[in-house]
Order: sequence, then C-alpha cells, then structure tokens
Amino acid sequence: MNERIYNFSPGPTMLPFDVLQQAAKDIINFDHSGIGICEISHRSKEFMNVATEAERLLRELLEIPKNYKILFLQGGASSQFYMIPMNLLSPGQKATYLNTGTWSKKSIKEAKLFGDIDVAFSSEEQSFNRVPADAEYSVDPDSQYLYFVSNNTIYGTQFPTMPESDKMLVCDMSSDILSRTFDVTKFGIIFAGAQKNMGPSGVTTVIIREDLLDEAPDSIPTMLKYKTHADKDSMFNTPPTFPIYMVGKTLQWLKDNGGIEAMEKINREKAGRIYDIIDASDFYRGHAEKSCRSMMNIAFNLPTADLEEKFIKEADIQGLNGLKGHRSIGGCRASIYNAFPQEGITLLAQFMQEFEKNNPA
Amino acid sequence: MNERIYNFSPGPTMLPFDVLQQAAKDIINFDHSGIGICEISHRSKEFMNVATEAERLLRELLEIPKNYKILFLQGGASSQFYMIPMNLLSPGQKATYLNTGTWSKKSIKEAKLFGDIDVAFSSEEQSFNRVPADAEYSVDPDSQYLYFVSNNTIYGTQFPTMPESDKMLVCDMSSDILSRTFDVTKFGIIFAGAQKNMGPSGVTTVIIREDLLDEAPDSIPTMLKYKTHADKDSMFNTPPTFPIYMVGKTLQWLKDNGGIEAMEKINREKAGRIYDIIDASDFYRGHAEKSCRSMMNIAFNLPTADLEEKFIKEADIQGLNGLKGHRSIGGCRASIYNAFPQEGITLLAQFMQEFEKNNPA
Repeated sequence: MNERIYNFSPGPTMLPFDVLQQAAKDIINFDHSGIGICEISHRSKEFMNVATEAERLLRELLEIPKNYKILFLQGGASSQFYMIPMNLLSPGQKATYLNTGTWSKKSIKEAKLFGDIDVAFSSEEQSFNRVPADAEYSVDPDSQYLYFVSNNTIYGTQFPTMPESDKMLVCDMSSDILSRTFDVTKFGIIFAGAQKNMGPSGVTTVIIREDLLDEAPDSIPTMLKYKTHADKDSMFNTPPTFPIYMVGKTLQWLKDNGGIEAMEKINREKAGRIYDIIDASDFYRGHAEKSCRSMMNIAFNLPTADLEEKFIKEADIQGLNGLKGHRSIGGCRASIYNAFPQEGITLLAQFMQEFEKNNPA
Repeated sequence: MNERIYNFSPGPTMLPFDVLQQAAKDIINFDHSGIGICEISHRSKEFMNVATEAERLLRELLEIPKNYKILFLQGGASSQFYMIPMNLLSPGQKATYLNTGTWSKKSIKEAKLFGDIDVAFSSEEQSFNRVPADAEYSVDPDSQYLYFVSNNTIYGTQFPTMPESDKMLVCDMSSDILSRTFDVTKFGIIFAGAQKNMGPSGVTTVIIREDLLDEAPDSIPTMLKYKTHADKDSMFNTPPTFPIYMVGKTLQWLKDNGGIEAMEKINREKAGRIYDIIDASDFYRGHAEKSCRSMMNIAFNLPTADLEEKFIKEADIQGLNGLKGHRSIGGCRASIYNAFPQEGITLLAQFMQEFEKNNPA
C-alpha cells in the first residue's frame, strides 16, 4: 500500500503530514548544516535552538507562567508514576489520588511505595466508565497534592473540566494535553508522554512549579531528582534529540493551525460527529457515561463480539486502521488526537452508518 | 551548506548514510504500510517485528547466549548508574569499581547510595590518561561485581582487552560496543547508550544475565526493576519506537559490512592513521598513554591553546566538524565510531599535516 491510511491507534499514532515531510528532509540534512538531525550533538548550537524553541512554543501555547520549568525527560509517563511521589512525599506524608483507569491504578501502586496514599474515588467497579464530579470525593486536608488522569485512553473518559480543589493538582495529561485550554497555575506538576498529542514516543514532557524542585530527599539518585534536569535545561545527560525535534515541529504545526482554542473547537466537532452516530443508534453503545466522554478516545461496542471483529476487519480494509479496543474492555476504540484529520472522521462516520445498515442486529 | 560534512562529535554523531536515506522514506510510509515509522503502534505486528529484528541482530553480532536478555530502555546510560546497584546490591553488600573517567566517577557516586563501594583503581590524579592493567588492582572477594567503563569518551582511553577477573563483570560499553569482539559470558550486565555506535540518542541497550533479574528488592518502583522490562520484551510501557527502529537499521548496516570482526579491523586502521601522525610529530601530543589508547576517541593537544582554537576553527571551515575537546581537559578530540567514514579520516590526516606545516610552533 502506498496511499496514506487513517490510523486510530491510541499512541504512537498519526502525526501531522507536514511534520513528517519536514523530518524526512532534516534527517538527511538538518537546516543545511550538512548532517542530519539525529547526528548533531545535543551540545551544538543547532540542537540547543531546537530544544529551546520546543520549550518556548509549549510555554506560549499552554500559557505556562515563568515560575514553572518545562522538562523533556525519558522513561515514559510510567516513570513519572514513581518520580512524583519519590520527589514530593516523605514517609508518612499523604497524597490523594482519583482512580479512574489503568494508568491511575498503576500510579497509585507506585505512590504507595513512598507515602500514605488516599484513594478518594474509584470507578473501577463500573469498568471505569466515568470520572467523578468535584462533589463526589473529598481531599484529606493533610494531602500534599491531588492526583488525577485528565483523560483515560483505554476507557474513553475525560474530566469535562479540571477538578476544583484548594490542593495543588498533579496530573497525568498524556492523552489530552494541548487538546483544550486550562489554567496551568492550579497545577504543581503536569506530565505527558509525547506519543499522543505532541510527537513520537521517547520523550515525556514535565511541567513543574519551581518551588517543588527543592522537595526531593538527598538520598535519591541524581537522575531521579527533577532539580537535576531543571538546573541543566534537560541536558544533564544526552536527551532524546529526535523525539524533542519532532515535538518542536508538532507544536509549531499546532500554532500555525490556530493554537489550542482552535484545536479544542475542532476536537469537539470531530468527536461530536462520532458520538452523534452512537447516540442516534441502538447498534452502537458508548462505553463512557455521557457527562464525561472523551474528545480523544471514543470507546464503543457493537451488539456482539463477532460483529465487533467484523467491524474492525472491514474498516481496516478501507484504510481505517487500529480500531480494536483495549483488551481490558474489548470492543472498538477510535483515538482521534489533534493530528487526526477531519477526512478520517468523515470516512469513519460513513463506514459506521454503512456497517450498521449492512449488518442488522 | 548542502554537502555532507564530517562530524567528529562524541555522540550523537554520524550515522551510516544508507540508514538515514532509508529512515527518510520510512518516516513518511513505513514498509508500504501507509503510515510512518513514528506513527505505528508499538503493539502493532509491524513494530513488534522491528524490535524483534533489532534484538536478533544484536544477539547475532555480539554472540549473546540465550541466558541473557536484551533490553531497550530509556533514560540514557546515566540511568544505569543507579539501576545497576539498585537491582544488584542490598545494603552492606560490596561492589568494586575502577575509576577511569567522568562516567565511572558518576557511576561510583550513585552506587554509594545502595551499597559498600570499593574503588580499586583510580587514574583521576593523572587526568584519567590511562586505565589499569589487571595486576594493578585487586577485587575484594566479597564484591558482587567488578564495574568498569570499557572506553572513556572524554579522555580517549580504552581497555585494550577486557579485565580478567573471577568476578562477574559489569560494563558501561556506551562508547565502544560493537567496535570489537569480546566474550559476553564474562559479563553480568553490559549497557550502552545508542548514540555512539548503535543509532540516535533516546534508547539504551542493556544486556543482562537472566539469573540477575530476580535480585531486585521488592521495594523498588516497578519501572526500575530489570525484570519488569525483561518479562515484557521491553514493551512494559511505550518504548522509544523511532530510536529502536534506527538501532535495527544500524545493526543491519553493520552486518552487511562484515560484522564486528571486519569493523574492528577498520577501526584499528582508522585510529592508527591519526595516531601515526601524532607519534611522528612533536606538534601533536596524545592525551592517553599509548598502551590504552582508544580506537573510538582520539584526544590530543597542540603546542598552545591558541593553536588548538585555530585548528578547530580552520578544520570546521573544511567540513571537519566537532573537533573541540571536552571542557574538562580541553584540546582537541576526534570521535570516530563505526559509522565514521574512511574518507573523513583521510581528510583529517591531511588537514593535521598541513596545519602543522603552516603553523610552526
């Protein structure tokens, strides 16, 4: 196949085509330097500019105040699950977690190694089909922070607005960062693996309020202290240069396309078109409660598992790839991040309607 | 500039041009799949094949026995500095380290957080201009392992042969893995950041003897246990897909060019041509003792710092880039890993001879 397909994978997933075309040139000869982007030293002026520009764009797009550091780290969002409590909690100190899916659950497990973790809400018994409203949980006054996952990739749920709390928020924003506006100043730490809305896999962005950098106990390894990386602008050791380059190009694309407000509007439209089909039909059933449906990941079922299998197979033949749901809930899932094109939504919508017609339940 | 230059950077640095050309295609449309290599899911058959093939090639090239696991991790070699003692040492247990440069020194610092570290040799007072012969140090019988850095990027020294010891060896092979043959079975752990001899930055290869996977205490975070990654073939969380793809392509290039024995011969020739010029001259002085000169990094000085600055500047104009030595010892350094082309060596040799002629000391 040589035509471009539509890839609904939860990440890594589709990137802006313009970014790929630029990368294909820069990988051979970056900015007329005579060597490729993967080959230049991270200490070179050329790469320092790449990293600085990526940081500047993220700060501009998310309106990140000066008292926050932006770090480009390795290890995936999963490494933040332990780095956060390791840096922020001393033994006996408390933190409050909201359990809304696989990733919050894993995060709770790691946090328990470092402090006294209060799980103030869990939708696990409802197969994580919803996230809480503010009134549904309370935060222990002694908690150091309130931790939540803003969008749950597997279950297709999303906090419609960020939790209101007088506690500092700490958020895994891996699957919806840059998809909608929010107020950074409510947060102590925001982190996100790049491979959904920001670029390829291999780099994790951490936005951290500067006063938190000094919280880490001396006894933890140098590489695991946020301060180590903040003090050296993420260049304490060799950073993942190509992933950072790609993040910069993706952020530039986002800016060129109107920034986050414009993107949020498009995302609502894109998701809305698929949810409308689900709501108008008895054939398709959404997994998430309507009040907290995700704009990024649409998890849905068909009347039978056989029909789901057929749906996924036939879609794939039509160039609609990666619609299989996560093994933990089965069914189908369409992940449609910022870079997922409108035309792919149109094709999926058409396919869903035709499939329903051709397969009476 | 549109011509390809010769980049002597210590890493990230030059990659095989064939690999770059293939990557430029695959970034747009990988293997005719209709999406780029950065966009495909790490759980897809396509990417699983990429990762499996990279592992298979490494196993074949280094003759790695079946009782060793190959892991592709994030965090750089610097993350191994603490992961190794965190996984292998209990409080009070001993390990022996050889201090031959900046990277061993950093490693010793992290290891001291986890165990009783015996530094059996140090050349720090001689500006790390040499590594020890086996007879120059002894290893405490109670040590769990003997740790060393096989090649010291900054100082241009290299163990001419791997240390002989009845202890299990643990080695930072970041800057000379795949450059020469050696016997893997003497090692418990070998690790290497990819950005010198294996690919771009963003992935670190860890080769670990299987029986060591069970040594980690339960109390350490999931992501920091080798076993976590070994049990899931480095797919416990989203791996750095593009860097792993590039490692596979670089290994294939290495195999196509005769494998490690052929590469070792070429590396000896390449380095030999520059060392011959240094030895035949009073103008150039090598930093390393002759007995332990590196085939990968040639650190040398000119009569004065002014001449060194002029040398680096004029070389750069001729397309010989990145010859500045590390700030800790100054002077000049030519890093010439596997993918550094012979023609670049010829040009550097000519340039060195001409520069000497034109600049009588």
